[in-house]
Amino acid sequence: MNLIGTTGGVCAPEGFLAAGVSAGLKRSGAADVALLVSARPASVAGVFTRNKVAAAPVRVSRERVAAGASRGVVINSGCANACTGQQGLSDAVAMTEAAGDALGVPAGEILVCSTGLIGSFLPMDKVSAGIGRAASMLGDHDQAAAQAIMTTDTVPKLAAVAHPGGWRVGGIAKGAGMISPNMATMLAFVTTDAEVEPALLQAALRRVADKTFNSITIDGDTSTNDTLLAFANGASGARPDAGEVEAALLAVCDSLSRQIVSDGEGVSKFVTVRVTGAATEQDAVRAARFIAESTLVKTALFGEDANWGRVAAAVGNSGVHARFDGLTISMAGVQVLTGGAGEGMDAIEAARAAMSRNEVTIECDLGVGPSEAVILTTDLTADYVRLNAEYEL
Amino acid sequence: MNLIGTTGGVCAPEGFLAAGVSAGLKRSGAADVALLVSARPASVAGVFTRNKVAAAPVRVSRERVAAGASRGVVINSGCANACTGQQGLSDAVAMTEAAGDALGVPAGEILVCSTGLIGSFLPMDKVSAGIGRAASMLGDHDQAAAQAIMTTDTVPKLAAVAHPGGWRVGGIAKGAGMISPNMATMLAFVTTDAEVEPALLQAALRRVADKTFNSITIDGDTSTNDTLLAFANGASGARPDAGEVEAALLAVCDSLSRQIVSDGEGVSKFVTVRVTGAATEQDAVRAARFIAESTLVKTALFGEDANWGRVAAAVGNSGVHARFDGLTISMAGVQVLTGGAGEGMDAIEAARAAMSRNEVTIECDLGVGPSEAVILTTDLTADYVRLNAEYEL
Repeated sequence: MNLIGTTGGVCAPEGFLAAGVSAGLKRSGAADVALLVSARPASVAGVFTRNKVAAAPVRVSRERVAAGASRGVVINSGCANACTGQQGLSDAVAMTEAAGDALGVPAGEILVCSTGLIGSFLPMDKVSAGIGRAASMLGDHDQAAAQAIMTTDTVPKLAAVAHPGGWRVGGIAKGAGMISPNMATMLAFVTTDAEVEPALLQAALRRVADKTFNSITIDGDTSTNDTLLAFANGASGARPDAGEVEAALLAVCDSLSRQIVSDGEGVSKFVTVRVTGAATEQDAVRAARFIAESTLVKTALFGEDANWGRVAAAVGNSGVHARFDGLTISMAGVQVLTGGAGEGMDAIEAARAAMSRNEVTIECDLGVGPSEAVILTTDLTADYVRLNAEYEL
Repeated sequence: MNLIGTTGGVCAPEGFLAAGVSAGLKRSGAADVALLVSARPASVAGVFTRNKVAAAPVRVSRERVAAGASRGVVINSGCANACTGQQGLSDAVAMTEAAGDALGVPAGEILVCSTGLIGSFLPMDKVSAGIGRAASMLGDHDQAAAQAIMTTDTVPKLAAVAHPGGWRVGGIAKGAGMISPNMATMLAFVTTDAEVEPALLQAALRRVADKTFNSITIDGDTSTNDTLLAFANGASGARPDAGEVEAALLAVCDSLSRQIVSDGEGVSKFVTVRVTGAATEQDAVRAARFIAESTLVKTALFGEDANWGRVAAAVGNSGVHARFDGLTISMAGVQVLTGGAGEGMDAIEAARAAMSRNEVTIECDLGVGPSEAVILTTDLTADYVRLNAEYEL
């Protein structure tokens, strides 16, 4: 595949416009309302949170994505519009009506996403005014849109690739906290000017989500608002085959999901957990997730402590099939346990030194089969606790 | 039931002797080898970790408990003897041989437990010498024994009750970190001078463990060494009925498990999570556990933030059957969500103020059935992260 990394995000493909404005939802005065619009009707696909407390915008968008066609999405940060009952649903629909009116398209073709504090109502006057302003400023503003969807993110997240066949895929995302996507990350939007049927787009998006956003975890908490949307408007005139589309989506989503992990709340390490030698892929994913979500493994990473016993205990907790007497574990590239036998203090010290880097890999071989999986995660820091004890936007 | 709380621990019942000595396993020089012995053969029952990486002493004791009779247990702290392969098993057996020799009883009637760092071998010279010394000092030393089994615990944990019928139940325990017992806490030992058949003792102990040690969680990590043992030596001559025995075991284990939560690593809050209105007891336990183990709920507790949205999101993550649009949530006794409708900022502020206490209750009604469950837990503090980033005994 000859994909070329390129600058920009959702506006890198032809025929997509975006805007981000400050509507006053965040006390800080930072941008908090974004619009992403296709100049022509687009195929659409979506992957949504599996949290049973799905936010109002998730319910509205999930229903509309089923139609397979859309003109765009309106997004706000600063308020999740989750646990808001009937009024929350009305507010979510009203956001699409405000956007539809401003853009001159049917409200039913507009999707909606929210992110921020759970359990409060949207200040609809401010939101509607913000949507109107955003519509009047639409342009090549993917940076502004990426900024307007941020909560505790410290940097906007954009990615784009160009295919030699004359079409592109671009995306923006936000992450930071309550990140253990189980279908998608909190919010991510991907566009392409290739022509792609809705059913094909949906199938590709689901597979890509499993390999990218669903393979990262920061704190093991799946949000009520997770949404990943993909729009394909065909503006380039190119009709790439299914494999090419999926590879390009994968490249963009992989970049966005790595950016989310790097910008996790209070994070000091980017951690790759690789489990090999599993009986099934499910077992490999489960074991990797138990390692990645163990509080004790995460604090050891923060302390740069090659405490492989905590890794072994996490695998034992996962209950997967494994040769528990014969595990092999490496930390930061140094093998500290080989077939169940410890490599001694020199190896521990070498691993400890290697763990001072910002990127650390934990590898664990279960010794029973051919399957493997990778989960990306972070350490657990005192700063994470401080940030989440005093959460305010 | 007319149980009378009394002082002491495992030596409160007649015919049990204990000792705790410093054998040099901990760098600090604190006590690290304990013996608990029945002056006469006793019925024994045990509940062990479900972590598949079971430590060597767990494997040895599990096999021996099946015989139903025992003379006592030898315990060390400072080294978990877990992930230590064949040599670990030999070392665990050698500990029982040293104790058997010193006590003049068959080694096969002695059980063994270890707690501490995973993945290093026991310094057997020191351990054997310590066991010999402990055997020569046996007496009414349950305080010393409770101290010798501590790792990062800050206080020893003892409990005892007396029954008017002339028999007693006593216990000691240790906890602190890697606490999400799944069969038992890290280490707990309960004695009674009532006469109880092994099968009855085992059945009662399993039910009591589910209601006490298996209903607490500090960090969601189940240890490789969790062990709960009960000894009944009949020294009082009393033969209470099964219900009385179970009630007395429950009183002692309930006290010990609460002491473990109160002394959790870096803890600032003792938290009771109560889920009601669940379709089944399994659902109630699962939802309560998801709330209790959510990193975001725990950091909100540390920050004294009545963030009920995180509680609702945790329940949504658990996937249990619930009226997700109609949840009712109280925090620190203040109802903040009623049938899905928020009670507003005054209630949030009142809850926030009430959360400044050291003991906080979170209640969540699922609105679909009659079942309920309670899980005891703690907040997640910056001190917890610091302690576990630099773990050393």
